[in-house]
Formats: sequence, structure tokens, C-alpha cells
Amino acid sequence: MVEDKPAENTSSKSALKKEAKKAEKAAKKAEHKQTTSGSQEIVKEEVDVSIGKYGNLPVIKSENKNINRKFITVNELNKKLSNQIVWVRARLHTSRSRGKQCFIVLRQKEFTIQALLSVSDAVSKAMVKFSSSIPKESILDVEARVSEVPNSIASCSQQDVELVVTQLWVVSQSAPQLPLQIEDASRPEKAEEEGLNVRVNQDTRLDNRILDLRTPTNQAIYRLEAGVCRLFRDALTKKGFVEIHTPKIISAASEGGANVFTVSYFKGSAYLAQSPQLYKQMAIAADFEKVFTVGAVFRAEDSNTHRHLTEFTGLDLEMAFHYHYHEVMLTIGNLFTEIFKGLSDQLQNEISIINQQYPAEPFTFLDPPLVLEFNEGRKMLAEIGVEVGEEEDLSTPTEKLLGRLVKAKFDTDFYILDKFPLAVRPFYTMPDPNNPKASNSYDMFMRGEEILSGAQRIHDPVFLTERAKHHEIDVSKIAAYIDAFKYGCPPHAGGGIGLERVVMLYLGLDNIRKTSMFPRDPKRLTP
Amino acid sequence: MVEDKPAENTSSKSALKKEAKKAEKAAKKAEHKQTTSGSQEIVKEEVDVSIGKYGNLPVIKSENKNINRKFITVNELNKKLSNQIVWVRARLHTSRSRGKQCFIVLRQKEFTIQALLSVSDAVSKAMVKFSSSIPKESILDVEARVSEVPNSIASCSQQDVELVVTQLWVVSQSAPQLPLQIEDASRPEKAEEEGLNVRVNQDTRLDNRILDLRTPTNQAIYRLEAGVCRLFRDALTKKGFVEIHTPKIISAASEGGANVFTVSYFKGSAYLAQSPQLYKQMAIAADFEKVFTVGAVFRAEDSNTHRHLTEFTGLDLEMAFHYHYHEVMLTIGNLFTEIFKGLSDQLQNEISIINQQYPAEPFTFLDPPLVLEFNEGRKMLAEIGVEVGEEEDLSTPTEKLLGRLVKAKFDTDFYILDKFPLAVRPFYTMPDPNNPKASNSYDMFMRGEEILSGAQRIHDPVFLTERAKHHEIDVSKIAAYIDAFKYGCPPHAGGGIGLERVVMLYLGLDNIRKTSMFPRDPKRLTP
Repeated sequence: MVEDKPAENTSSKSALKKEAKKAEKAAKKAEHKQTTSGSQEIVKEEVDVSIGKYGNLPVIKSENKNINRKFITVNELNKKLSNQIVWVRARLHTSRSRGKQCFIVLRQKEFTIQALLSVSDAVSKAMVKFSSSIPKESILDVEARVSEVPNSIASCSQQDVELVVTQLWVVSQSAPQLPLQIEDASRPEKAEEEGLNVRVNQDTRLDNRILDLRTPTNQAIYRLEAGVCRLFRDALTKKGFVEIHTPKIISAASEGGANVFTVSYFKGSAYLAQSPQLYKQMAIAADFEKVFTVGAVFRAEDSNTHRHLTEFTGLDLEMAFHYHYHEVMLTIGNLFTEIFKGLSDQLQNEISIINQQYPAEPFTFLDPPLVLEFNEGRKMLAEIGVEVGEEEDLSTPTEKLLGRLVKAKFDTDFYILDKFPLAVRPFYTMPDPNNPKASNSYDMFMRGEEILSGAQRIHDPVFLTERAKHHEIDVSKIAAYIDAFKYGCPPHAGGGIGLERVVMLYLGLDNIRKTSMFPRDPKRLTP
Repeated sequence: MVEDKPAENTSSKSALKKEAKKAEKAAKKAEHKQTTSGSQEIVKEEVDVSIGKYGNLPVIKSENKNINRKFITVNELNKKLSNQIVWVRARLHTSRSRGKQCFIVLRQKEFTIQALLSVSDAVSKAMVKFSSSIPKESILDVEARVSEVPNSIASCSQQDVELVVTQLWVVSQSAPQLPLQIEDASRPEKAEEEGLNVRVNQDTRLDNRILDLRTPTNQAIYRLEAGVCRLFRDALTKKGFVEIHTPKIISAASEGGANVFTVSYFKGSAYLAQSPQLYKQMAIAADFEKVFTVGAVFRAEDSNTHRHLTEFTGLDLEMAFHYHYHEVMLTIGNLFTEIFKGLSDQLQNEISIINQQYPAEPFTFLDPPLVLEFNEGRKMLAEIGVEVGEEEDLSTPTEKLLGRLVKAKFDTDFYILDKFPLAVRPFYTMPDPNNPKASNSYDMFMRGEEILSGAQRIHDPVFLTERAKHHEIDVSKIAAYIDAFKYGCPPHAGGGIGLERVVMLYLGLDNIRKTSMFPRDPKRLTP
């Protein structure tokens, strides 16, 4: 870790000279552009020693390909670069001027660094003044010397160095008034000491999502969400699943017609799919054997809760099996194990950034996952005096309660509840051949909330018709669905996962709007 | 490759005995189920030596987890398994009986194998009769001995072995009348010798998509499509891109209001997004730097052509750059190179299966890809007498013509056409600072057809407003879009790719309905 200092200094000095020359050239070029573009403001003094080293750059229109600045990312800035001259493009996070000095904090994604301008032979008063007047959130190109600091800078992610600015150019200027402050939006939920109690409410955040998404927490949340998607797909691809794409515009409401959005389709009308299920099943009937699909799912439910969206990202899968639907259920259980392991292996940094703002117990899971039967769950609830009927569904509060009981007994935040009552599942669910009140269906839970619902589906058209009639469904209206199984279909099972719920519950967040980049609910269609 | 035969025989004999015992048990179990279920037909003779070795299985309802049959997939069947007893679950592709024999072909995904039943001590006349009466496309569980054949079986994918059937159970029976024959749907486009000229037209295929998708070609096409998606994401993830999910339901029509589907949204109305562009750009303004998204894109165009769909899968990306949009354009070009390399490395088998039915010239590309400027393209066209104005777009036939010229000159089926006329691009496209008639925009082509359109977008709200006014756009209506750039935004560029087009053109197919699993066009909303 300790490098050969003298040698490094010599080489870095010559590098420095080179850099400086290059920078000078680039600056002159930029300055030239400025004066020729004519529309940009230049701050001047009588004798400004920094002229050509700062100002507003004209809008970058790709004039020049040959600017050979090697940019360093903020998270790369550390002691190893001491005394080197670097270029950084980052946002002005905060700035504060004190006499002849201006302290600024630069931010790039989740990372921040302190930078300093002070009046000297090379830095004019005008340059310091200009720097201190730039609106926060503007994007800057900064040339600076990396400088070790004696005391670690607690307020920044890069704590052992700061930047001593030699050039400063505004690439894109922010409006001076921000509808929310990134610092406020980044503040931990429960740090109420020191009077730091300004928070930003959810609607203000969502109305100004572009700013809100810039907080380190949000940067990390959506990287983690991308990670869940990637892990989901990679694990299934390894298991031989094929990715498919299913239509969102459908001719008939997939699950009975309630809660479905209508679309005008040329001279007729159509619907938005509430799930890709029919299409996944058709892919199974068409011999793809194991399929998954990631895509938008639409629910026209007027539910204004912490966990409902009208549009969300569905992670769906369907799989043929030989003799028992547990072949599929355990594949899904194992998939979750792989996702959880992948998250803690690959995204620990993101998780800890998020935890700083939204503290939560670490997510626990068992490998292989815990499988409970519905009746065992009922028993656990009955033991503490909560009765659930043999043919009754779990209410949301009961689900959560059972989650707490399971966590206490088995120390897992993830489990599978198998063998739901037949009466509470859709008509296409395969009944349990060994118990007339049960079905071959399962839900999976994270921190006591359902994140997947799945089942063995009836693959036989005669039996499916029988079950539809039993549910008093007009069979003529679902003929296309039943016909999908007419030409031979293997037994199969599957499930659908709500991506935003998985991320919310994994992180222990309180609202699904925190894990949907541009959430849609009955009251929100923008941005 | 040559294994120790005698030793293998000994061990395989004892394995065989074991297998036979197991099989007998399983069969008895199945038989027991049959008789107890009562509803299934059993074919009987006076003395049926095969009783309990064939029949219709009851609907598999996951009665039993403990059936220890190890299934072999059809593509695993080869000489190495000679004389072994195996279980296979596959479709009855064809069957043909001849006196005391019944020849069947079993199909599993892209793979086929011949199987044989002939009356013997172990196989009854009734069993052969039953087997020859099973409707094609039914799914069977077959126990059989793998047997080497003296002459390779040209009509099957597995050519050096056949199966000598010892048990045969119908898992899922197909309706006897098929609306199309898989063999007809699989027939090469141009094999008109031998009178094999039955083809299946496109509407019949799409109306019966579940059957049509079972052809080896379709099995391969959708595996290749999944491959394109995977390669797209993996290449971008490696380059530091973050996957995002953008809303499909939006409050305002994204590109001006034409060609947009309207959705009823609770008491109001909304639209289906024609592109994720605004949201990708917002993610850039929100510091994600490099983003991609894969999802449904909707176009309410009444275009009934070989290459238009009303719903397709968009592979979209957007990326901040430092000084020149070529940083992005070349990243996208390189992405395509990686995809093309990945396809030929990983999916050669699929490509050759597809080529058997739809012959095409192998797809050629250069690494790095060819970049032509629009004016160079115009010159090439002018040389053969086709004039395109300096501010004129390319028509589809001209595009194709230019593609042929480029192929002839540079031997590449992929190229980038840079610097489109400003006049033919949307208002948010960055003008070329060095040529008032040009813009910083590009299209990319495969076999002469456009598969990506992209550009540097204007990231400055003042300039964007100016350009919108120039295009006579009511600025108040796009205020939300313009405001996205109000709080500082880095220069950025991107593009959108149509997945189905990429697959169609890579394979040299003639219609986009061949590469959309469940296509949507102005006249088709089902299945």
C-alpha cells in the first residue's frame, strides 16, 4: 500500500507539468469558445490572474472530439493520488464561502468529496467569487490537485483527501431555487438530535423525482433493484429457462374483467394485461418447458396503500414438471436463495448506504428455504389465539403476524406457505388430490408480506372446464384459455413476483413508492 | 470416446434389472391409480401380456412425489446409451403402424427420435394398437431400450439410435384434429421437389400459435431472441450501465400525440408510452449516468407492413458523455459487435436450425463497426444515380439500396449512419455545431433496415425551448419535459432498438411476425 514516494513525486511532477500544459490548452480552447459563442457570461476583474481557468462553458454540442482530459471518478479519489492533478466532472453539492476561501462539496452518484478554492497567485478573487455564486446541483468540470487532509472529513464519502481547485467550469447550470434540498432528502429517518429534523415528504419527493433520485440512498436502491432483476434472470438462465416477451395489450380481460384498464385500439378496444400468466402457460403448451418474463403488469385497483401500484414490474416464471409441483416450488425457493445470496455478496455497499438513511434489521433466510403448510401456519396462529378457518384466506395483518411467528421460531425472513385452501384460489388452480379442501398452491413471503403467489395450474381442458363451471364462470368467455391445453400440455406450475415489493421488503422499507423509480398509483401519473 | 464395452454391459445389465424392477413398480402404481380413478379408458385383450405397461395416465395432480424415474432428454440420446433402459417424456410427433409394428417419432423441443413397438413376448398386440391410435401432439412417458441403428435415421435429429419401447403412457392427450401439422409448419421454404409443397400460411400459424411455436425453427428463434436480450444486458452491465424500469402508462403523449393509444385511467385518461426516452433522460438528469431498459413499447400506427408492430420490445439505452456524442455512438456500435459475436459463439446450433427452414446469407459485421456520414451515404447513392437531398430523410427503399451498396463495398450487414439532416429529426435532437443542416444523430442498420435510431439530446433547457419554438411546438405542453433539465443535466445521447427487428434481420427473415411470440398489429390482438 505504501508506494515509493520520492520516485512518485518526481514522476508526478512531470506528469503535473504535462497536465498543466494540457489543461491550459484546453482552457484556452474553452475560453475561445466562450468568447466566440458570445452568449455566455464571463466574470472579470481588472487584472484577473485566473482568466481562462473558470467560467460557464457553452452548451456542449460535441464541437470537439479531441479533448484529452482523463476524468477521475469521485470514488476513485484517495491518498494514492496525492499531489496529482486530476479532472473531475461532478455536481456542486454544497458551497460555502468564507472571506478569501470557498469550500465546496462535489457529488457524483453516491460519492462526495470536499474541494477548496482560496485566493492565491493562481486563483483570483474573481474566481473564488464566481465559484461561490454557482447554484447548487450545477454540473462542474473541475481541475484540481489531490491533497491529503490531516483530519478525516466525516461529511464526505472520500474522507482522507480534498481537492485544491485550479480550474472550475460550469458544464450545466442548475436553476438557483431547488424545490427540495438533496441534503434534506438524504437525511436519516431517525436522526433527530442536533435539530436536523427537516425531512422531505413523499409527494414533494415524487413531484421532483429528478432531484430526489440523486440522493445516495436512491442511487443505491435502484442499483440494488437492477441487481435483483439480474440475479433473477441469471439464476433462471442457468437452470435452463428461456426468457420470453408477452403482450401487454390483450383482447380479453385476463382474470375476469375486474380491475383492468381499457385501451382504445384503433376502432375497437382492448385491455392491459394484469399478468402474463396465460402467455407463460401458452409457452409451456408450446414446449418451451421453462420460461420467465420480466415486464410491466397493470392493475386498475383503486388501492391507496403502502404496497399497491397500478403498474409494476413483474418477474414471472412458469415451468413444466414431471410428477409433482414441488419440483417447481422448490426451484422458485432456491431462486430466492440465490437472489438473497447474490445481493449480500454483490451489493453490500448499496445495502449499507440505504441502511444509513433507512435503518432495518438485516434480511435473514434459510438454505434451503423453510416450507410450511397452510395448516401448520394456522396451528401456529391458533397457538396464540388467532383462528383462521380451514377454507379461509389470510388477511394482511394475519400474514404479518404469521411472519413474526415464523421469524421468532425459525429465524428466517423468507418462507414458503404451501397448500392454500382451494376455495380462496382461482379456478385454474390444481386441487390437492389428497385433501379436498386444499390446493397445489403456494405463496412466498418476505418479512411477513406476500411477494409471490403461485400454483400448479390445471393443464387438462376437461378438468379445467369442470373447475370453471364449479366457479360459475361462463366457459364460452374463456374458451381461448381452455383451448390452449387442447393439443397436449405437460403438467406445470409457476408464479409471479412483484419486483418493487421484493426490493422494499428486502431492505425493510415502508413504502413501495420508494422502490418504483416513477411510481403509478390511482392518484399519481406523473412524472 | 470408445468405452469399455464388456464392463459397461455388465453394469448396464444390473442397472437394467434395477430399472426394470423400478419401472414395474411405477407402472403398477400408475395402473392402480387408473383403476381407482375409474374415469380412464384401459385397452384390454383377453390375455394382455402388456397390461400395466401402457394406457392413459390420469391427469397428473401431484399425487406422488416419490416416482424415481430419471428422465433423459431426447437430445441426450445417442450411442453411448446403447442397450440402456431410459424414460423419456416427449410429444408424439408422428406415428405409423404396419401390421404388428408401430413406428413413432418422439419430439422434444428441437429434437426428435424414432421409437418402435413390435408385438413380442413383452409387447402385446393391444399395446401396439393402442400406441398407433394416440393422437399426434399428445405427451407421452415412454420407457424404452436405446438401440443402435445400422443406417442413420435422416428424418430425426437423433440419427444413430432408436428407442425400443417397453412402456408407453399418455400424460396429456391432444385433440385428434390439428388445425395445422407441425411437419407442414416446419417445412423449408424452398424445398419444392418431391411434391412436399404444403405450407402453412401466416394467419393460420398465428391463430394456432401454440402449435406453430412447437416447430424446431420457432423453438430456436425464441431461444435466439432470449440470447439477444441477454447479450444486450450483459454487455451493458459490464460497461457500468444500470437497468431501470420506466412507466408504460403516462399522463401526456410523449412524442406529440399522434400514434398513441389512450387508456382509461380511473376517472380520467392516460396514454401508453411510445418510448421510454423521457424517462431514460430523467434517469440521466438524476445522475444514473448510463442506463438501459428492456420493455414494451406501443405505437398506434395503422401500418400493416412486414416490419411494424403496435407493441414491441424496446431495448433502450441512454448515456452521459464528457465532450462528444461519439463516446455514446461508438459504445452502442461496440454493443452490437458484442451481440453479434455472442450469437455466433453461443447460438450457432439455433441459427443453423432456423437456416434449414429459412435459408439466409450469414450475417456479416466489422469490428469496429463501419461508421458512415449521411453525406457519404448520399454520395454513394448519387454515384448510382439516386439523388437524396441534403435535408431529406432516406425512404425505406433508399435505405435498403444503401444497405446493398455498403454490403458490396465494405462487406458488412451492420453499419452506423451518422449526422442525419437536422430537418428530419425531432426537436430535441442536438444540431451539429459545425454544419447548420446536420445534427448529432445516427441510425444503425442491419441488412439495410433501420434497427436503431439515436442522437445526442439537447440537455440545456434554454436551448431546448428555442428549438421547440423553432419547430412550432407549444412549449407550455412540454414544460414537464423541459423542466427535467432545469437542475443541471450532463450532455447525453442514446438510442432505442427494436428487439424483434434485430432478430428478424440478423436471421434474414421476411416478416417481424416471425420474431414476436404473440404479435400485435392493427388487425391482430389474439392470441
